Amino acid sequence: MLHARVYGGERVSVPQTVSAQSSALAAGGAEASRVLERVEERMAALTGRHGSVLAHHARETISAGGKRLRPLLVCLASGVPVAESDALVRAAAAVELVHAATLVHDDVLDGSSLRRGRPTVVATGGRLIATATGDLLFSRAFAELAGGGSVEAVRILSRAASGLAAGELMQRADAWNDEVTVERYLERCRLKTAVLFRGACELGALCGGGPVAALGEFGEQIGLAFQLLDDVLDVTGPPERTGKPRGTDLLDGTVTLPLIEARMRDPELRAVDLRELRTADAAAALCDRIAATGALELARGEALAFVDRAKATLPRLPERQRGALELVADGVVERYS
Amino acid sequence: MLHARVYGGERVSVPQTVSAQSSALAAGGAEASRVLERVEERMAALTGRHGSVLAHHARETISAGGKRLRPLLVCLASGVPVAESDALVRAAAAVELVHAATLVHDDVLDGSSLRRGRPTVVATGGRLIATATGDLLFSRAFAELAGGGSVEAVRILSRAASGLAAGELMQRADAWNDEVTVERYLERCRLKTAVLFRGACELGALCGGGPVAALGEFGEQIGLAFQLLDDVLDVTGPPERTGKPRGTDLLDGTVTLPLIEARMRDPELRAVDLRELRTADAAAALCDRIAATGALELARGEALAFVDRAKATLPRLPERQRGALELVADGVVERYS
Repeated sequence: MLHARVYGGERVSVPQTVSAQSSALAAGGAEASRVLERVEERMAALTGRHGSVLAHHARETISAGGKRLRPLLVCLASGVPVAESDALVRAAAAVELVHAATLVHDDVLDGSSLRRGRPTVVATGGRLIATATGDLLFSRAFAELAGGGSVEAVRILSRAASGLAAGELMQRADAWNDEVTVERYLERCRLKTAVLFRGACELGALCGGGPVAALGEFGEQIGLAFQLLDDVLDVTGPPERTGKPRGTDLLDGTVTLPLIEARMRDPELRAVDLRELRTADAAAALCDRIAATGALELARGEALAFVDRAKATLPRLPERQRGALELVADGVVERYS
Repeated sequence: MLHARVYGGERVSVPQTVSAQSSALAAGGAEASRVLERVEERMAALTGRHGSVLAHHARETISAGGKRLRPLLVCLASGVPVAESDALVRAAAAVELVHAATLVHDDVLDGSSLRRGRPTVVATGGRLIATATGDLLFSRAFAELAGGGSVEAVRILSRAASGLAAGELMQRADAWNDEVTVERYLERCRLKTAVLFRGACELGALCGGGPVAALGEFGEQIGLAFQLLDDVLDVTGPPERTGKPRGTDLLDGTVTLPLIEARMRDPELRAVDLRELRTADAAAALCDRIAATGALELARGEALAFVDRAKATLPRLPERQRGALELVADGVVERYS
């Protein structure tokens, strides 16, 4: 409820946490905004090299924007963000470049034609160019970190990137599988989403000399909350807010928490075979059925519990830093609520 | 001619430089062999983590083998290879992992079903799993290097990986383009192939405390020779040696040196539009036509010239190291000649 009005007059094509992010950014102070500006400049400069074709597609990908939630986390986890800190700006840019790379590859695999209201790289350049653009964004991310001179930073990012790929593989392996347990679902969420949130916080802490492990744990918990809420939004929509039809995951065979929980409550849902789900109407009907079991409230409750846990894991920090991180944590579950 | 007999009794499905590599390895001494054994163990261990699906595909990819030319270069460029050198083994494994990652992605894009006589990841696991497997091999490569503690090593590999992706993009951008110049073709070869040969030699030199820039230059020159010969082999075949029909590049719209040179010599070839080339027979006929102009001898001569230049750039090195590196240089243009 809290932030719904913010979206009123805005063309929103993908999930946004703009208002919560803005609050967190404001709480981070003017210096946090300056860091993020430098991150934008840095990414623009990085994607402006490597010849015209790449320059075009990588630049389009980066300039299409997004929430920049991960760079914000790097920034806030660093404690006192300093726009002149080369290491901090590099780390924040690297995390966003890895995120952008995975989105470009995801769009290739899903054959998606739009993201953030713009044509995807695969739609304009084809599969080869999109795959190479993703690979290049990956490589640039590591080059960026290596340029900062911290091997520990590279270690953190490569661990996160390995997790993302393993998460994609796990999602594929579990597609159409009725037997996916809650534990396995959570492990998939951890890999495909939470590891990069963890990495962002660890990198920030590393740059700021803060508690790396504790802030990493905070990042992982809000990453889990973020993914759980994403999966709830796939069922609830509304499409005009989420930018995709309800039940898109279900049509892809992706078994998420709302479906797992709904199946425990409704015996008839246990008999549903996702492979037989073919149309958007059928998917929407299944979403209604899932909603009727109360599974969405439960999944949303789980997401909120992860946010609470995230806040509880926050170590002793300066008041202002803690406040800003808590705002981000709240923000990940406040989309369209 | 020199090594043709070696292949007589062997099932060969892709270009091999086995004999030259064996000689170079022998020249590198028993220690070089032990380093490469440790690289194999290391890659097997690395690809054995990350859950069962990934483990399976990554392991299959790595165990399918290959020439291991790049790890050999890392090893020989290090001077005195020491199997106990963690940094050396990590660097060699990382280079091969990046190479493997690009092959997996290439197979996705080409829809290739076989590589090295085995089913590709995309053939057995589908596009999503193959893309994620490639991403994971990339990430593991950087994790591997970062684990070795050298940020300069990460810098070298990320620069090489960026080049590979940019090279793929350039090849795509230039597809079907009659106007590709020799200079632009060479720049593409440099990016898509030679940068990783350069990186392998730079990493080896870094590990061994040798002359990084000079050995990097050597690597780049033999990488160019390697790619030029690959492009000659696409035209000459024979398919039972190269593992693919003659003219595969031409059918993909890839304009290589033999075609560029042949067009300068045969006005009728200038009128050929690759887009109208549809069948294997037509491709084979075009290959014959290219061969008739003498362009292949010229391209092969260019490759040999790069080998000569590579040898000439070799700095003052211990006799044995120099000898082994020269054998590798000769080997890259001795395939099936």
